Amino acid sequence: MFIELDLQSETPIYTQLVDQIVEGIDSGELKPGDSLPSTRSLAEDLGINLHTVNKAYNLLKQEGLLQVNRKTGVIVQPGGMPGVTEVFAEKLRRQLRSLAAAAAVRGMAEEVFAQESRSVYQDIIRIRGGEQY
Amino acid sequence: MFIELDLQSETPIYTQLVDQIVEGIDSGELKPGDSLPSTRSLAEDLGINLHTVNKAYNLLKQEGLLQVNRKTGVIVQPGGMPGVTEVFAEKLRRQLRSLAAAAAVRGMAEEVFAQESRSVYQDIIRIRGGEQY
Repeated sequence: MFIELDLQSETPIYTQLVDQIVEGIDSGELKPGDSLPSTRSLAEDLGINLHTVNKAYNLLKQEGLLQVNRKTGVIVQPGGMPGVTEVFAEKLRRQLRSLAAAAAVRGMAEEVFAQESRSVYQDIIRIRGGEQY
Repeated sequence: MFIELDLQSETPIYTQLVDQIVEGIDSGELKPGDSLPSTRSLAEDLGINLHTVNKAYNLLKQEGLLQVNRKTGVIVQPGGMPGVTEVFAEKLRRQLRSLAAAAAVRGMAEEVFAQESRSVYQDIIRIRGGEQY
């Protein structure tokens, strides 16, 4: 899987890693059971700190998207993706609220904000060919 | 202005501070020209690090929502809020994309995601009594 980091971005590196792995799963490029590089090898390939890769992998493990263990290494959750839990829905709402507040303060209209949200979602789905899990 | 932090949350403290100040402006509780506490006094009141408050204030200053200078202290941008710049729109899209990818991987439907987005925006607007800037 091809990972491209923007080291100048204000988005933290571990967040960029998390996002690209999630989008890789979304697009079907990464399938359940697929192996990811070890922490050490990904850190070396990308020229970033070991802890940064660890932070991203651990976060995705906590969320149930990856399995990390000594025997199998790092793999995409073979049992399929977790569903929309109450914890996830709550976190999503909190993060959307933060974006909505920033948009509203700049005078972005409700309709524009709602349309942007729908449009990015459609982009994600389009990449995987319109199918949903 | 009443600021409530959740020190156990996985949301960084400076992000919580930024969000609450933005929502304070959104709700009209903080008006253009209003003073905010000095970095030192806010850090002491909240029992958090000086640098954390500084990070939040500087971010809001960079975005044009606050003015920070020696003479006036920290005030809400008196000339009114910045509009939707191309830089802001791009950043918003990137952040929405990250949330949409996480929602899609868990099988949340497009309609649900779009509706959640609209609903949090409406909550923000409702607090300020339905008016837009």
